[in-house]
Amino acid sequence: MIKIAIIGSGNVAQHLIKIFLDLEKTNSEICVNQIFARKKEAVSHLAVHSKIINNLEFLEDADVYILAISDEAISSVSSQLPFTNRFIVHTSGSMPLEELDCRNQRGVFYPLQTFSKNRTLDFKTIPICLETEHEKNYQILDKIAKLISNTVLPIDSQQRKALHISAVFVSNFVNHLYLIGEKICSEHNISFDILKPLILETAQKITILSPSEAQTGPAKRKSTKILKEHENFIFDETEKNIYKILTQSIQKHDKEL
Amino acid sequence: MIKIAIIGSGNVAQHLIKIFLDLEKTNSEICVNQIFARKKEAVSHLAVHSKIINNLEFLEDADVYILAISDEAISSVSSQLPFTNRFIVHTSGSMPLEELDCRNQRGVFYPLQTFSKNRTLDFKTIPICLETEHEKNYQILDKIAKLISNTVLPIDSQQRKALHISAVFVSNFVNHLYLIGEKICSEHNISFDILKPLILETAQKITILSPSEAQTGPAKRKSTKILKEHENFIFDETEKNIYKILTQSIQKHDKEL
Repeated sequence: MIKIAIIGSGNVAQHLIKIFLDLEKTNSEICVNQIFARKKEAVSHLAVHSKIINNLEFLEDADVYILAISDEAISSVSSQLPFTNRFIVHTSGSMPLEELDCRNQRGVFYPLQTFSKNRTLDFKTIPICLETEHEKNYQILDKIAKLISNTVLPIDSQQRKALHISAVFVSNFVNHLYLIGEKICSEHNISFDILKPLILETAQKITILSPSEAQTGPAKRKSTKILKEHENFIFDETEKNIYKILTQSIQKHDKEL
Repeated sequence: MIKIAIIGSGNVAQHLIKIFLDLEKTNSEICVNQIFARKKEAVSHLAVHSKIINNLEFLEDADVYILAISDEAISSVSSQLPFTNRFIVHTSGSMPLEELDCRNQRGVFYPLQTFSKNRTLDFKTIPICLETEHEKNYQILDKIAKLISNTVLPIDSQQRKALHISAVFVSNFVNHLYLIGEKICSEHNISFDILKPLILETAQKITILSPSEAQTGPAKRKSTKILKEHENFIFDETEKNIYKILTQSIQKHDKEL
């Protein structure tokens, strides 16, 4: 049986606590034996109180300690752990394995998804990217990851950084473009709901076509007149700038094809 | 019964031809009596040959002529129509009603979606935006639009331009960000497939949360160190520029909240 300790109470921690606690009910191969949260209340709706601790000194023996905490806290929390030579992992897309204190054996357990509160996710569909210093620890991570996800793969720190930057483009920046779309609609008394089928189809199309095949619109068609009209229509300078640079980038890419 | 003539053979035309021909099999209220395609072959897989014409002079009497053609062709094709005072519409998001020749009664029938070849769409979910010069013609469009879509609404030419620009942001530009994500992955030997669950969740989340609530990532968290690392990691100047300007825009928006 693999004993897991989860450290943290933010979005990622809460999703992991929930999925592993659900899993241990039906699967005897794993067990969540402790959850650390600075404020116990933050996770008390998820787990029985006896499992929750708020002092790192109370951490008991476990096969893996999952530090699902903010990027900024990884270095400091990992150096406060009251043990050495055990297996600890962080869950960050943007931090190298070496961000963890080196007195323990280190690894990364990175679920590639956007986690928001009050949003239930089907973990099976979330890719989990793994990295460890030691092969025997990789086997532990691989086993628990495959219990919760259909896509588990080794990704080293350099690749993870590239993957995280890609994720920023296809998720964080994409969401910001949704926000700009919503703002322009609202300025003209149009409900943002009208754009939702388009947003969903644009995402779903990508599972069938490559982004290059899926590209449509005035920049792709080189409709100079419409592009000019749009630029003149947008009065917010930042939005106008985003319009111009993304249009140029679409056309630059087409030229390079 | 409403008699429809469809003029055009591109993506939008083909989707409309298919949906209206399917519909007329079961609904006696409408009839597609003619389809104009400059090259008959382009639509011969969709319709019986007797309905297809390739000469505008052969157009017979219809209640509405739908010009599903490129933005650039609307003015010229509408002025070549061999009749006056009938009801003609275009399907463009970016063109005003006045782009149509004024010898006929004019309107707009704009399905707000991204149309790609070989991609079947559930038309019921596609919002259709309508505009007409005359109220009696609005009733005709409203009737046929409601037969194929659950969301039909009046949108004037100024609103339609705003809507089209919003659509460029949330669809065309979003797709280009997918392309950049794919490129960065491929440069580091990572399969783009790993990003697809994230892409889908980012889009689906927007049906529940507002874009502002849904925003995550280093720009939102103001993780200056990670933002700097990302900028240094991206070597393509255009991509680096896009990274910077979208990061600034996310942070500017947060400040204004």
